[in-house]
Amino acid sequence: MEFTAKQIADFIGGRVEGDENAKVRTFAKIEEGKEGAITFLSNPKYTHFIYDTKASVVLINDDVELEKPVSATLIRVPNAYECVAKLMQMYAATLPKKTGVDPLAFISKTAEIGKDVYIGPFTYVGDGVKIGDGSMIYPHVTIYDGCQIGKNVTIHAGAVIGADGFGFAPNQEGYDKIPQMGIVVIEDNVEIGANTCVDRSTMGQTIIHKGVKLDNLIQVAHNCEIGENTVMSAQVGMAGSTKIGAWCMVGGQAGFSGHITIADKTFVGAQSGVISNTKGNGEQLIGAPAIDPKVFFKAQAVMKRLPDMYRELGALRKELEELKKEHNA
Amino acid sequence: MEFTAKQIADFIGGRVEGDENAKVRTFAKIEEGKEGAITFLSNPKYTHFIYDTKASVVLINDDVELEKPVSATLIRVPNAYECVAKLMQMYAATLPKKTGVDPLAFISKTAEIGKDVYIGPFTYVGDGVKIGDGSMIYPHVTIYDGCQIGKNVTIHAGAVIGADGFGFAPNQEGYDKIPQMGIVVIEDNVEIGANTCVDRSTMGQTIIHKGVKLDNLIQVAHNCEIGENTVMSAQVGMAGSTKIGAWCMVGGQAGFSGHITIADKTFVGAQSGVISNTKGNGEQLIGAPAIDPKVFFKAQAVMKRLPDMYRELGALRKELEELKKEHNA
Amino acid sequence: MEFTAKQIADFIGGRVEGDENAKVRTFAKIEEGKEGAITFLSNPKYTHFIYDTKASVVLINDDVELEKPVSATLIRVPNAYECVAKLMQMYAATLPKKTGVDPLAFISKTAEIGKDVYIGPFTYVGDGVKIGDGSMIYPHVTIYDGCQIGKNVTIHAGAVIGADGFGFAPNQEGYDKIPQMGIVVIEDNVEIGANTCVDRSTMGQTIIHKGVKLDNLIQVAHNCEIGENTVMSAQVGMAGSTKIGAWCMVGGQAGFSGHITIADKTFVGAQSGVISNTKGNGEQLIGAPAIDPKVFFKAQAVMKRLPDMYRELGALRKELEELKKEHNA
Repeated sequence: MEFTAKQIADFIGGRVEGDENAKVRTFAKIEEGKEGAITFLSNPKYTHFIYDTKASVVLINDDVELEKPVSATLIRVPNAYECVAKLMQMYAATLPKKTGVDPLAFISKTAEIGKDVYIGPFTYVGDGVKIGDGSMIYPHVTIYDGCQIGKNVTIHAGAVIGADGFGFAPNQEGYDKIPQMGIVVIEDNVEIGANTCVDRSTMGQTIIHKGVKLDNLIQVAHNCEIGENTVMSAQVGMAGSTKIGAWCMVGGQAGFSGHITIADKTFVGAQSGVISNTKGNGEQLIGAPAIDPKVFFKAQAVMKRLPDMYRELGALRKELEELKKEHNA
Repeated sequence: MEFTAKQIADFIGGRVEGDENAKVRTFAKIEEGKEGAITFLSNPKYTHFIYDTKASVVLINDDVELEKPVSATLIRVPNAYECVAKLMQMYAATLPKKTGVDPLAFISKTAEIGKDVYIGPFTYVGDGVKIGDGSMIYPHVTIYDGCQIGKNVTIHAGAVIGADGFGFAPNQEGYDKIPQMGIVVIEDNVEIGANTCVDRSTMGQTIIHKGVKLDNLIQVAHNCEIGENTVMSAQVGMAGSTKIGAWCMVGGQAGFSGHITIADKTFVGAQSGVISNTKGNGEQLIGAPAIDPKVFFKAQAVMKRLPDMYRELGALRKELEELKKEHNA
Repeated sequence: MEFTAKQIADFIGGRVEGDENAKVRTFAKIEEGKEGAITFLSNPKYTHFIYDTKASVVLINDDVELEKPVSATLIRVPNAYECVAKLMQMYAATLPKKTGVDPLAFISKTAEIGKDVYIGPFTYVGDGVKIGDGSMIYPHVTIYDGCQIGKNVTIHAGAVIGADGFGFAPNQEGYDKIPQMGIVVIEDNVEIGANTCVDRSTMGQTIIHKGVKLDNLIQVAHNCEIGENTVMSAQVGMAGSTKIGAWCMVGGQAGFSGHITIADKTFVGAQSGVISNTKGNGEQLIGAPAIDPKVFFKAQAVMKRLPDMYRELGALRKELEELKKEHNA
């Protein structure tokens, strides 16, 4: 591809500052920009890079005021990040897409595979598994027997869908395994990251509802449910039978106790530990155990002064006792 | 299968309340119960579901008092969870079990595979590996050279047994690798979850003793030892050379420092960080660094009031100084 | 191999105490030593094992004073751990090394594989991937299209290099996927642990610089950069666009927020949460949010006394009020 700044500005509804004929052939991060690249400035932390970038064109928000002239051609837009995403999507759509079932995949005879599906080498699709149209299953994915994958689902390498939930009943000598007889259902438009695990249900279904995005190395235990369009960063863990609502956002390495219910639009900070039901939609939680972020950050700020507080408390006690003695003398 | 409530009650020693001839063909969660399903009520959190469940039969503890009539037939038992587990085990035992070495697995010529073993497609079994009778090794497992797997062991997809321990000695330019020349030994009746990693020892053995149950995405570093029947939830991490006793329970995402010893029957809460030896059997630990749960939860409760305490401390100081001044005046 | 204590002492420049002709054929941990084994004593925690070890030879630091005679022959050296590592390296170098591309690996026709490379069964090497000389790629590794692996790189089983970064832009109905068009670059002498994930960049490169050592189950998000010779323990997570300097050490289960910069030689404790740029080289950080270890441990020590402090504060208030009343009476 090769486009001029003007062509791009016209396409996304932006305004050119600089050379309208500046040409771009590729994308680059602003700090790695080079001749022929288009980049963007969205995070104010990176503003200083714009003065030195060698990129030919920079998408930049209308309201950013620059302190010095820049050599790159600017395209002013209301939201530079959205615009670059749109351009990348447009470009990506022109690239060849992997399709077809690789001959090195293992597909059970009783599995049902939809149209326009990609299944990579070494992926294992068990008995009775259903995979909907347009889904992309990368190499090394394991889908245990009976699970259901919707349409336009993406599953990255190494993910394991439908392994046994973790259920054992203690006996005198050790544990009896509780058979895990349910399945996993993954609805349409879900994306599941590399090496993420979603365990099958003890009975019934572990359900990932449509539009959910799970990052890498996440653990979803048996009987869990994740509501539509909820997004989870890497290494999050959910214990068994927990239900998370729709449109939630969960930061990396956060954890959820079992058998709790999280309402829609809950925001959970990274590394938090959520141990009880939330009170209603839109709650924000951080810390372990997770509490209101305002309370959390205030308490954290005082934390560092704890040793001083402890000493001061001792001093106050001593001085008060002396004063009492004097008063009573 | 199809059984009546009476047949089931007779089998597990329960008492029918309702239609003795109610028929069940499948298992269901109480909130997803439907005609022909048997379910159970064990966790009091779910009691409200019993009034609306469409399940035909519900196993319920003797001591649960219901506030309203229910349409389902009840079977009263001392422990509903144990009974449903027993029924599921009985049913599962009638299902066909995977056996045999899949032709798509890689088995070294020098590996020794026991009887009635299942090894799934794409599983890699290295040189000199031994696998005991009755073990189930799901697809995509990697067992490095020389490791030993006992009898009736289950290893889920993507688990990696025997990769190099993490040992490097710094030199002027970088690091020298410390060869990891030991092995991993997994004893009988162990279950290992999906994508869990157990590293080989530097010398000697990393040992998982019999009956241990490890959930998904766990890290067991080189030279570790886990005692009999200890259970660990997902995403736990053990640093090198740490020894955990028998019959311990470890919550999800907990971590253990290296070179420490944890006594038998220790209970470690989720997300805890255990950094030193425990004092004796049966200890409970929570938090990071992990402490006694009573102390932990009391301190957590006060945490939220820290900013108030800080202000109060300042107020007391000021008032005390004023009082002193007045007193000395 | 079979060597005498004298031969080994001569080779590493140590001094024999005991039988110069004691013979060793293998390595062992000190607590598992047996006849014919050489072991070492480096960690003072393990000193008590030396009196009972059945190992024939023990490497021991010059400055360790023993309280009782020992049956093993000692070799005194300035640094026992370094010496045993050197001996193990020497021995490991004599063992046969895996080489060659296994016929059960999938190698794209457009991939470029260097000399003396090992690629294990079921490993997937995508289009345009480059792998440098002497690298060892164990079974079940997935390397997505376009990634670059340097020389003498080791990648353990189940690692996923180059899966899509986690980028989604919300729209009315769900999310638009932000195409992840960059690659992953892994430089020379890097080691990557089992089931670790390194995501491809949105644009440009996710870079792991030379000599970096990553343990198992680590998450490196899109656009990250890890400086030379930095070492990370298992289950660490880095959010997107974060840059970590050279020669850093990161403890297990630690996490890094996105878009931050960590200076060289930073030390981050296990389970820490680093949420902002560091101030300069050589900083130490622990806790979540991560702070100076001295402050952290002092605050932790006081934490347990928080409930007492809270009560004492209330008592002080009450007594002060009484004293005021008396004073004003």
